Parts: sequence; C-alpha cells; structure tokens
Amino acid sequence: MITSVSTVEVRYSETDMMGIVYHASYLPWLELGRTNLLKETGVSYSSIEQSGFFLPVVEIQMKYRRPATYDDTITIKTTMKEKACTKIRLEYELYINEVLIATGYSIHAFTNKSGQPIKAPRQFTEAFNQAF
Amino acid sequence: MITSVSTVEVRYSETDMMGIVYHASYLPWLELGRTNLLKETGVSYSSIEQSGFFLPVVEIQMKYRRPATYDDTITIKTTMKEKACTKIRLEYELYINEVLIATGYSIHAFTNKSGQPIKAPRQFTEAFNQAF
Amino acid sequence: MITSVSTVEVRYSETDMMGIVYHASYLPWLELGRTNLLKETGVSYSSIEQSGFFLPVVEIQMKYRRPATYDDTITIKTTMKEKACTKIRLEYELYINEVLIATGYSIHAFTNKSGQPIKAPRQFTEAFNQAF
Amino acid sequence: MITSVSTVEVRYSETDMMGIVYHASYLPWLELGRTNLLKETGVSYSSIEQSGFFLPVVEIQMKYRRPATYDDTITIKTTMKEKACTKIRLEYELYINEVLIATGYSIHAFTNKSGQPIKAPRQFTEAFNQAF
Repeated sequence: MITSVSTVEVRYSETDMMGIVYHASYLPWLELGRTNLLKETGVSYSSIEQSGFFLPVVEIQMKYRRPATYDDTITIKTTMKEKACTKIRLEYELYINEVLIATGYSIHAFTNKSGQPIKAPRQFTEAFNQAF
Repeated sequence: MITSVSTVEVRYSETDMMGIVYHASYLPWLELGRTNLLKETGVSYSSIEQSGFFLPVVEIQMKYRRPATYDDTITIKTTMKEKACTKIRLEYELYINEVLIATGYSIHAFTNKSGQPIKAPRQFTEAFNQAF
Repeated sequence: MITSVSTVEVRYSETDMMGIVYHASYLPWLELGRTNLLKETGVSYSSIEQSGFFLPVVEIQMKYRRPATYDDTITIKTTMKEKACTKIRLEYELYINEVLIATGYSIHAFTNKSGQPIKAPRQFTEAFNQAF
Repeated sequence: MITSVSTVEVRYSETDMMGIVYHASYLPWLELGRTNLLKETGVSYSSIEQSGFFLPVVEIQMKYRRPATYDDTITIKTTMKEKACTKIRLEYELYINEVLIATGYSIHAFTNKSGQPIKAPRQFTEAFNQAF
C-alpha cells in the first residue's frame, strides 16, 4: 500500500451559488493527490506522458459528506492498495481539520498515444514494486 | 420512469492536453441533463432554490468508455427511475452519433438553506407524481 | 466586418458563491462566439488545428456591467472588424434580453505546431476575404 | 504600493488540447494572488464577505507572452499601486523561473449584498492605510 498526503486551499472559482464548493471542483483535487503520490514513488506523471504513455480516467466516484467552503484547507489522503497491471485504482479521503468531508476513487487505464490499452510501462512497475 | 434528452457541443475549454475532454468536464453536462429533466416535469431548479430548497450532489459516478473531443455533439439521456422522497437518483447515458461513450449516476439530497436534510418539497413531489 | 450571434444558457457550474456567474466563466462563452463566427465563414477551428495551425489567445479583456445568473440566456454578438494578417482581433457584446451586460475583446496569433508565429494560413485568408 | 508574491503549480485540468494552459485558467491564479495580498494586509476576503461587502470583478485584462504547461510552478506577483476608494485596481505579473510569461490587471468595485456600489468599508481602508 502506498499513501500520499497533499493539501489544497479552496479557490473562489471552485464555489457555486449554493455558497459551497461545486461538486466537480473536487476532481482536480484528487488529481493533485495522485500527481503527488506518483512523484513520491519516483514517476512523475509528466514523465509518463513524455514516454508516450497516458493514464486516462476510466471511472470515478465521489461521495460528499459535508460541504467545503472558500478558503478552507483540504487535506487529501491518496491511497494505492494494489500494484498496477493494466489499470490502477486510487482511493481518496478528503478532510477539513481532521473531519472526513468526502471519499472517492478513480480507476485509470494505461494507454499508448493512439488510446489503445497497454500494460503498465516498465519504468512504472519498477518504481511501484520498490514503493510497495 | 422519466426520461429527458439534451444535447451539448464540446467546448475547447473542456479539453485537456491529452487532446480529449477532461473527465471532470462531463459533470456540468450531467447537470444540463437534469436541469432539462426538471424543467420538462414542470419544476425548474431555479424555482426550487427560490423556494428555499436545495438539491446538492451527495454522490456521483462516471464510467468513461470512449473519449469525446472538441466540437463533438454529445447527446445526454437522463433518466429518473424512482420517485423522489428524501433523495433523488438520476442516471445518465452519453452518446456521440448513437455510440455510447459514457454512463453515470448522481444522487441528490433535499436540504433547506442551512443544509439540513428535509423531505422532498410538495411542489416537487406533486410535479413528479404527475410525470411518472 | 463579420458578425455572428450565438446564445448560451448559464450553467450552475459557472456561478460562484456571490450568487452570480464567476468572471472567468464568461471566457468560454467568447470562445463559443468565435467558434461560430469561424464556422459561418467556412473555416471551422477544428479544421485549422487539423491543418497544423493554432490560434492561441495572446490578449483578452472583459468589462462586466451587470451580473448574469443561473439559467439566464446569454446572447453573444461576436464581431471581426479587420481582416486577419498575423493576428486577429474579435470584439464581443453580451446581452440578456437585449440589455448589454458585458463587453470584451480577444486577440489571437497564428502559430505553427511548435508555437512559432506565422502568417494567416491561405485557407483562412481566402475564406475571410470572401466573407468581408 | 503593496506587493504580494504567491506560487501555484499548474494542474492537468488547467491545460487544453493545445497542450498548454487554457487562457481562462490563469484567472483563478490572479485571484489567488489577490487573496494572499488581502490576507497579508490583514483583511481576508472571507471576512469582507462576512461583513456583507463584496468585491466583484468589473474589468479584467490578460496578456499572454509565453505558454505555461502542466506541472510548471507559476510565481504570481500582485501589486496594488493606489489606495482603495470605490474601486481597487490590482496588477499582476506571472513568472516561470523568473521569466515573465503573462501580465494583467483586474478592477474591482465594492458593493453591498444587493450589488449596489458603495465606498470601501472602514475595516478595509484602515488596513490598507497602514499597509501603504
């Protein structure tokens, strides 16, 4: 299991007229969480794309427990429980002051430039084998 | 069961550097789908909020089958299978030229202005009883 | 002079906690305006990129006179006053029910794939010469 | 003159199919810059809204010199050259590794809850008088 913790401050642009954060605005935060998890295991997502591989989102789910508001500091706990093969699954817990406000997961498939599914590239599996 | 069909043209702003639509950009399309479904049953979402009720998203899921690209026309089929009580669940199918590209669902809770869960307001249940 | 008129319905996602449309949410509407203006002169922006040319924004300005709110219908009047050479300039007027709510302009430069400035490609100048 | 320096990492969601940051994605960065400038002078924007005042954007301009890409670190230099009266004007310079990539300004008007223009609230002018 690999875990990474990130924080983000809520932007005004991320709120909606309900006075709270718009539900789709959480998705870039999850992305921040996995960007950091990848960096910490030694494979930045930029370097993945530069090698001609992509990791598009094939499935995503979010459950919203409590609202987040402008200027809140969100703590994002990103967890990868299983090693990558053709897909990777990441789980997310979002907190404000240690109170769980939302949970979610995302599933990603490795593809080549033309969008064809491929196995996890070697640089990736090696880095993850070490991290697990 | 209530069904509503909407269409939307993909905006440049909705794409990302992968050359396709960013996964979070689909969520406002689902919202367009449910906005129209509500209007067609005679209860616009604006009027719900003006009456002091809200319908925040409490859960959302999307499965992405095929990419969407700039200038594509997306057809959004929104379905409500069960009558509203304290929550409503909507299901979505997204098509390009009759090819299914993504599916998803959203669950919403009725709340008052202070965010407390409430039963579906009367104007809402009556309109939906008629539509079902 | 070439003019094009488009309409767009305000999305919930485009509002912020002030209860009105977030100022940056207007920019994709301008894009919609110029996408349609280009299509109407016979050169879709998709086809420009497919030919290996790009039209990145090099300058943008917006003046906001009156707020826009959720579910409003915005009319976007896009005008091109001068023929394209190495740059194009577009002007925008946004209306709700014939009341002017915002004005703006955008300036775009023609570039090749590596971002180098180039002259307007021929397919483009010919189409515009005809339209003017 | 008051100056504040912030940094932000480019998110994947902020890019578009041109492979670079979408022009509207810069606007929330400017907001980050002014949020921090306000905090540093002792008046958080949250507290302004909680006192019943708002600072909507009435005009914005951006000039883009060089593209920004995913994972870049952007330095935002926000400057307020004149004291607030009924409006405030902020200027922005954006850098990547000390290279200027974009400049811009925003003008904001003080309003009350119903959107009527008002003079800068006292808590605001006092804090700024001290900072200048």
